[in-house]
Amino acid sequence: MPDSALFAVDWGTSSFRAYRLDADGAVIEQRQAPLGILKVANGDFAGTLQGEIGGWLAQSEAPVLMSGMIGSRQGWSEAPYAPCPAGLADLARHLHPVDVTPGRRGWIVPGLVHRGASGPPDVMRGEETQIMGVLGAIGAGRHLICLPGTHSKWVELVDGRVAGFTTHMTGEVFAVLRQHSILGRLMEGDDVDLDGFDRGLDRARDGGGVLHHLFGVRTHGLFGEIAASALPGYLSGLLIGHELANAGDGKSEVLILGAAELARLYQRALARFGRPSRLLDPDAAHRGLFALLPHLPKD
Amino acid sequence: MPDSALFAVDWGTSSFRAYRLDADGAVIEQRQAPLGILKVANGDFAGTLQGEIGGWLAQSEAPVLMSGMIGSRQGWSEAPYAPCPAGLADLARHLHPVDVTPGRRGWIVPGLVHRGASGPPDVMRGEETQIMGVLGAIGAGRHLICLPGTHSKWVELVDGRVAGFTTHMTGEVFAVLRQHSILGRLMEGDDVDLDGFDRGLDRARDGGGVLHHLFGVRTHGLFGEIAASALPGYLSGLLIGHELANAGDGKSEVLILGAAELARLYQRALARFGRPSRLLDPDAAHRGLFALLPHLPKD
Repeated sequence: MPDSALFAVDWGTSSFRAYRLDADGAVIEQRQAPLGILKVANGDFAGTLQGEIGGWLAQSEAPVLMSGMIGSRQGWSEAPYAPCPAGLADLARHLHPVDVTPGRRGWIVPGLVHRGASGPPDVMRGEETQIMGVLGAIGAGRHLICLPGTHSKWVELVDGRVAGFTTHMTGEVFAVLRQHSILGRLMEGDDVDLDGFDRGLDRARDGGGVLHHLFGVRTHGLFGEIAASALPGYLSGLLIGHELANAGDGKSEVLILGAAELARLYQRALARFGRPSRLLDPDAAHRGLFALLPHLPKD
Repeated sequence: MPDSALFAVDWGTSSFRAYRLDADGAVIEQRQAPLGILKVANGDFAGTLQGEIGGWLAQSEAPVLMSGMIGSRQGWSEAPYAPCPAGLADLARHLHPVDVTPGRRGWIVPGLVHRGASGPPDVMRGEETQIMGVLGAIGAGRHLICLPGTHSKWVELVDGRVAGFTTHMTGEVFAVLRQHSILGRLMEGDDVDLDGFDRGLDRARDGGGVLHHLFGVRTHGLFGEIAASALPGYLSGLLIGHELANAGDGKSEVLILGAAELARLYQRALARFGRPSRLLDPDAAHRGLFALLPHLPKD
C-alpha cells in the first residue's frame, strides 16, 4: 500500500471522517462514521480514533491532524481560538496538541475568533480548515466565501488569510421553528418547494422585519394561499433571504462552500437577488489539513 | 344579588375568564380557570361553560358574549375574520352565534383580518376586543397600540376603528430559542436581567440582522462576557429591539396594552429608543365585550 503522508481527521458534532493521504495530498483511503463528538461515550475520543483508524496508525508514523468540534469544550481537548486575520502559518502556530496514542502526539486545528469594531466576538471551528482547503482553487486576492448551514458563515478572505467573518443562525432558526413553533403545525414534509422558496425570498426584501414576516408563514397557510407542502420552502426562503439581505457587501461574487443541495439553494437565492456566485468543491476539509502539513511544528 | 346585564367570557388558548357585569359594566363576580381551549377535552365547550358559570346562566337571561381563541378553528365554532377597518358596529355585524345551552343563543366576537398593500394577510383574535375595551380611556383620533406577547400586535386605531395592524412573533421566537436552540444551553433561569436586556436592545440597533445578532448570544456566553443568568434578558432585549425597529412609524406615542411585567419591559425598551409610550389598563377584554352590548343583534 502507498506510503501515508498524513492522517487527516474531520471530526464534527454529528460525524467523523478520516482520510489517509499520500505525499501529494491524494486520498488513499477514507473512513466515515456517525461518531460525532456528541456520540462519543465517556469522552473516549482516543479509543474512538483507535477503533476507526487504529490499523492506519499502526502501520505509519505519519502525523495526525484533526479539525472541527473535536477542539471545542465538548470535544477531546479545547483548542483556544486563534485571532483573525489568520492563514495557514497562523493556524499552524496555534495547533493544539493531544496524545492520539500514548506517547504519540497529534494536533487539533484551532477555531478562529473575529472581533469586529463593535458587538460580541464571532467564532468558527472547522470552517477555517475547509477554507484553507479551497485556497488552491481560488488563488490570492480578496474573496467572499459563504459556508451555509446550521450556523452560516460569511468569510472575507484576503490573500489566503481570513480577515473577518460573521455567523448567521439561519439553519438552526429554521429547524427550531419547523419543529417547535406554531409555524410547523401547518406544514407537511420537509422538502423545499422551489416556488415557495422563491416567494419567501421575495418577501424577505419587503419591509417589516423577519419577526413580522414569520407570522406570514402562518397566515399564508391559514388562508390556503400556500400549500402545506410548500410552507417549509417558504420559511426557508424567508430566512435565507434575510440572511442574504444582511451578509457580505451585497455586490461581490459569493463563493459558496457547502453540501450540494443547500449550496444550490443559496446559489438560487443569490441569483434572485442579482448577486453573482460560484460553487466550490465542498470536500475541502482534508485538503485544508494537507495544506497545513508543511507548517507542522518540528519536534 | 345585583341584576346581570352581560356575561362576558374571555376564552383564550391557555385560560378561561368569565365576568358577570351589571348595567354599568361593573364586574359583580368573576371566574377564572386554566381551561383554555387546548385544555377542553372532546370539544365540550358547552359543558365547560356550564361547569364554570352554569349558576349565573340559570339565574338570568342576560346575553353571553365571548372573545378570543374560542372562535378559532380549534375552538367552539369558527367565527370568520372580519375585515379592517373595524370598530364596534363592524364587529357586532360579524358576531358568530353558538348555542350556549340548548335553545339559548350566545355570540362569539370575530377576529380581524388585515390585508396590506403587499404580503400575506395578518390576523388577530381576542386583541380586537381588548382594544374596544380601551376606547373609553383613549378617545377618538389616531392611536398606535402595542399588545406585546407571544405574537405581538401593533395596531393603528383611527376614531375607534382598527385601521390596520402587524404581528411580530417575538414572544414565540424567544420561547423556542430559549427552550430548543443552542442558545438556551448557556443560559440559567428565566428572569429578565435588566442590564442584559438593555445590552440586547442596543445591539438590535446595530447592522447585521437578527439572524446574525442571535449568534452573539452564544459568543457573549462562551467568552463569559454576559453571565448565564443575564443571557435570557439579553436575548429578550435583542428580539424586542428588532421588533421595535420594525413596528409602528418609529415616532408616535405607543399605547401599551399587556400584562404588567411585559408591558413595563416594552415601555423600558421604547424609552431607550427615544419613543414616548403610555401603559393602558390590561384588564380590557370584559370592557370591550360590554362596549359591544348595545350593538347586539335584536332577536
